[in-house]
Amino acid sequence: MEAKEIIFMSKGEGENSFAQNSSFTQRVAELSKPALERTVQSLITEDFRTNKVLNVVDLGCSSSPTSFSVMSTVIQNVKNKCQELNFQIPEFQFYLNDLPGNDFNTLFKGLPKLSERFTDVSCFFTGVPGSFHGRLFPSNSLHLVHSSYGVHWLSKMPRLRDEAGLPLNKGKIYISTTSPAAVKEAYLTHFKEDLSLFLKSRSQEMVRNGRVFFVIPGRPSADQFPIRESLYPWEPLAQSISSLVSEGVIEEEKLDAFDIPYYTPSQQEVRETVEKEGSFTMELLDKFVIEIGDENTWENVEKLSKNIRAFTESMISHHFGEEILDKLYDKFTQLSIQDSATSEQPYKIISFIIVLRRN
Amino acid sequence: MEAKEIIFMSKGEGENSFAQNSSFTQRVAELSKPALERTVQSLITEDFRTNKVLNVVDLGCSSSPTSFSVMSTVIQNVKNKCQELNFQIPEFQFYLNDLPGNDFNTLFKGLPKLSERFTDVSCFFTGVPGSFHGRLFPSNSLHLVHSSYGVHWLSKMPRLRDEAGLPLNKGKIYISTTSPAAVKEAYLTHFKEDLSLFLKSRSQEMVRNGRVFFVIPGRPSADQFPIRESLYPWEPLAQSISSLVSEGVIEEEKLDAFDIPYYTPSQQEVRETVEKEGSFTMELLDKFVIEIGDENTWENVEKLSKNIRAFTESMISHHFGEEILDKLYDKFTQLSIQDSATSEQPYKIISFIIVLRRN
Repeated sequence: MEAKEIIFMSKGEGENSFAQNSSFTQRVAELSKPALERTVQSLITEDFRTNKVLNVVDLGCSSSPTSFSVMSTVIQNVKNKCQELNFQIPEFQFYLNDLPGNDFNTLFKGLPKLSERFTDVSCFFTGVPGSFHGRLFPSNSLHLVHSSYGVHWLSKMPRLRDEAGLPLNKGKIYISTTSPAAVKEAYLTHFKEDLSLFLKSRSQEMVRNGRVFFVIPGRPSADQFPIRESLYPWEPLAQSISSLVSEGVIEEEKLDAFDIPYYTPSQQEVRETVEKEGSFTMELLDKFVIEIGDENTWENVEKLSKNIRAFTESMISHHFGEEILDKLYDKFTQLSIQDSATSEQPYKIISFIIVLRRN
Repeated sequence: MEAKEIIFMSKGEGENSFAQNSSFTQRVAELSKPALERTVQSLITEDFRTNKVLNVVDLGCSSSPTSFSVMSTVIQNVKNKCQELNFQIPEFQFYLNDLPGNDFNTLFKGLPKLSERFTDVSCFFTGVPGSFHGRLFPSNSLHLVHSSYGVHWLSKMPRLRDEAGLPLNKGKIYISTTSPAAVKEAYLTHFKEDLSLFLKSRSQEMVRNGRVFFVIPGRPSADQFPIRESLYPWEPLAQSISSLVSEGVIEEEKLDAFDIPYYTPSQQEVRETVEKEGSFTMELLDKFVIEIGDENTWENVEKLSKNIRAFTESMISHHFGEEILDKLYDKFTQLSIQDSATSEQPYKIISFIIVLRRN
């Protein structure tokens, strides 16, 4: 199963849509904004003086309004820095990328509003359907690559089988407390391959000294795995699927053949992969923590469950069929409520901010 | 009423969608292909030797597969010409433009197939939502601008009122045999303004010696207006709306306030406007004729009516409401069948091919 056919945020603007359930990604954008501002400003140096256009891409932009905040931050900071240095403000070419299944129609509806906010600069907007694990742009064309909560998605489901072809990760859909070491190794290998492919593609598309700015969920250290935070939402989601297996609604083989194409690395795993690929110098590797239950993210567990449905249901429905969705997510919400009632601490989601300079 | 909010081809891939009802535009693409091939080849001259990327836009691409034929023609002819001259084949950056209401989701679904056909060249695809009556791209960036059956759409409905504010074109929705001269003049003025705006925007976006290639429906001469061909489909569509007015389903004021933002110029009107705007030299102004009923377009009048519904219903439903659509197009199909049964000759649709070189 290729991820590019199945990973997309729920379409439209209705109750279960990603557009209505993206408070977490908006919080991520707020918390990573200061680092993004510094990165944008660092692009505008003497070398840039004669540049007439700034080419910026948001990879994995989805259809939520978060991409618009990013573009605003870029415009505002380029303007300020150019005025400070007495440079002419360039034209802005923004590329909004996501997989072909993304809801570009909803994304594009929001663009006129953004244009209206910046009447004193020339901004142009385009949508780019395709996988960032391959080439998306002509050589030597991009100045700034941004991606928020995209790069931790793998290009396909990892193959988790032993030598006899039997499932290694029975009853689970991600690295779990009961998963054998081979499962974690397979995920890590896959993540490293995909991140290398991502970096290689970007290195060809970017100009010298261009910057990649990306934010991904991460783990506190390489040893600690699985941690409680990395088990959510996959552990209760696996439990929900299992209980539909018990009820005979889902076949057991279907569950055994399903593993989320997703990996939360440690800082060390990211650093090693970037250094080994060799096209980029790491300028920043920072982290921040969001507590689930924090008033800035979700007011309650039902809201959180909706958010999780918005970014997982395309995969679930592609593999298990659309008809099980409501039943499955009802169970998932119940389990999430139970879990949050018994746990003493809120979940703490760690995010890494990574800034790379093209050598 | 701004055209950019209301003109789009019917969405999706269902029975009434534009994707399923675009045989006419495909026929137009076939007949204009030889001229497009020559235009593409004429771009590849000694000046082009060091070019690393060719930036091509299809303006008003809609969601039909026609755009893909155009891109194939461009790739094939650039490849051939580069091989002939022993130039390196550039990378291709294709921009697919239409108004924000266009169904980009359906358009993007077809792209992977196109990429698979050209594995030996680097092609990149982006969607650009916005009106071609304004700027869409950074300065000095485009080599080839293509548009098929787009440039005859006006940026908004013409204001057809006399000095007292009374409707000039009662009971009609386009220039008709009973329309006063002021109606034709208002349409022509509007067309000239919009074409000038189109050319001015492109002139800023294009490199020197870049080419604009566009195809539009036209009239045989400046004097002849209205001609029988320019009355269809607007005359039977106006009749269908009128009969819903008689039935009390539509208010008369609604009909009086509705005029199609569309104009079929004569060759002379196009030539004068291009010369007056002054940024381009006309390299070609050719024409071809498609007979409706021709086996290459529609096998019958019902099919033709569906095609017309696919490109008019967004405007009709925006102005008159969605609930009248089925009733209206049923009447329209009946009138079309009656008309085709009584007329001796098939409709002959004239198209102009216009090629402009950026000075």
